[in-house]
Amino acid sequence: MTVPRYLTGDGAGIEEFLSKFDVFLFDCDGVLWSGDHLFPGTVETLDLLRSKGKQVVFVTNNSTKSRADYKKKLETLGIPATTEEIFSSSYSASIYISRILTLPPTKRKVFVLGETGIEQELRSENVPFIGGTDPAFRRDITPQDYKLIAAGDESLLDPEVGVVLVGLDFHLNYLKLALAYHYIRRGAVFLATNIDSTLPNSGTLFPGAGSMSAPLILMVGKEPVSLGKPNQAMMDAIEGKFRFDRSRACMVGDRANTDIRFGLEGKLGGTLGVLTGVSSKEEFVDGPIRPAAYLDKLSDLLQGAK
Amino acid sequence: MTVPRYLTGDGAGIEEFLSKFDVFLFDCDGVLWSGDHLFPGTVETLDLLRSKGKQVVFVTNNSTKSRADYKKKLETLGIPATTEEIFSSSYSASIYISRILTLPPTKRKVFVLGETGIEQELRSENVPFIGGTDPAFRRDITPQDYKLIAAGDESLLDPEVGVVLVGLDFHLNYLKLALAYHYIRRGAVFLATNIDSTLPNSGTLFPGAGSMSAPLILMVGKEPVSLGKPNQAMMDAIEGKFRFDRSRACMVGDRANTDIRFGLEGKLGGTLGVLTGVSSKEEFVDGPIRPAAYLDKLSDLLQGAK
Repeated sequence: MTVPRYLTGDGAGIEEFLSKFDVFLFDCDGVLWSGDHLFPGTVETLDLLRSKGKQVVFVTNNSTKSRADYKKKLETLGIPATTEEIFSSSYSASIYISRILTLPPTKRKVFVLGETGIEQELRSENVPFIGGTDPAFRRDITPQDYKLIAAGDESLLDPEVGVVLVGLDFHLNYLKLALAYHYIRRGAVFLATNIDSTLPNSGTLFPGAGSMSAPLILMVGKEPVSLGKPNQAMMDAIEGKFRFDRSRACMVGDRANTDIRFGLEGKLGGTLGVLTGVSSKEEFVDGPIRPAAYLDKLSDLLQGAK
Repeated sequence: MTVPRYLTGDGAGIEEFLSKFDVFLFDCDGVLWSGDHLFPGTVETLDLLRSKGKQVVFVTNNSTKSRADYKKKLETLGIPATTEEIFSSSYSASIYISRILTLPPTKRKVFVLGETGIEQELRSENVPFIGGTDPAFRRDITPQDYKLIAAGDESLLDPEVGVVLVGLDFHLNYLKLALAYHYIRRGAVFLATNIDSTLPNSGTLFPGAGSMSAPLILMVGKEPVSLGKPNQAMMDAIEGKFRFDRSRACMVGDRANTDIRFGLEGKLGGTLGVLTGVSSKEEFVDGPIRPAAYLDKLSDLLQGAK
């Protein structure tokens, strides 16, 4: 395996690296910011890339936010962005359902385990759905529910549901799990926005979207199709939208086993690691999954500016 | 492998089989009843065994009920039983925590994901606990919770918790999962009453206790010690209580891969399969896990009565 090129302090190397790409896909947390803390130089670096005519795309597995929500988050942190530059796992899942899955006309409805971000993106693709943030599902299961579910009663099991989409749901409960399980048993396609086991918050970890699908995987004995990094279904969706030349695209990220793997398996022209997040220098240089190049921090790209 | 002996209609064979055992451990659903339907002859068969001086023990993985609750359930179905004859996974877990686990004096508290059955059995063994059915934990997670949990604040993370016990919780939520995860990260012992993925109800299946531990297993990357069938920790607890001679005990059940396996791995003198539940005749006769003998139905044992 080749040794990744260390670009920090190497102005000429940076110039050469940047010249190879037209599109930069950015993982966000750990690259542009950490938690609520924007890294110094992030805005200037994005400005530099845009001024050189590069397309920037913000790629996030966070399914609780829509692209519009995520744009607001970026702006709150001080990063100018357009909704079009944002690609989230909830949007990826919506595109997959509306444009790639072929569902019978009578089975087009989605049962959602998740929050408003998924709902907004399903609406943007005109995909009908139930569940999600509907308060009707935020309640305890009752003895009557067991009987109705067992009988396949349409008051609880909508016969038009052909997809179960599982994202991060802060209101997960027993009733929703039971319904999702029965929909999948009855033949619904099992999808997940992403399968990250945990979600970073406040400097530690909390249950992630993968923790919502884990009980269902155990019960039905099969894995969902995941529409988030590092699954290539997401790369296909990104390419479908931006129609870029993969050989002229570079994935930028802080995690070897998700971000860098996502770029490598997607056969992008390049991958760029940064040391401001999860993976260490040793992981990038000696690990099984290595980027083409790496930097101490993203803003070191400014050292190459002419 | 030996072929199981088919005892239905074989009066002499039944007499001989019964004479080999002093203790009969019974799986319940699928053996004595199905759902709310008591099988004909169940009561008479249990009477016969008791009249011959056999000890009967009802062994259940159902963690939501205490032994007292389960006794009521048996009586509602028309089966006379004493609390002492009942052995549930919540009781098994309580015994394991109080008598087998060696916890530092400052780490004796249990964080419970589960219902009242677990709480009652922990109380019966004088084990302190938090969580469970406490309404304080039946709420949404708040932005403040993330910060307090990240800071290890004692208002949310009790420093005396040394065990996380996961059973079937009809009120599972994100906050409880987050707390259980952080307790385990901080060193708490990870226990499960049982790891059945599903729970039978109304003739179909619903999420079981194993579906409650699945997200935690994914997040922490390790399995809990399970105190239910077929794990031998439960057999050890049963033996600890009844102090029987394993060679003179027989496990009766309808599932080869749980009940029969439980008896075989526990090196009991015998195992008896019945065809009124999950496993088929083919599974008992040709499968990888075979009982010593099998019957069409439990009440066929009455054919051996003199």
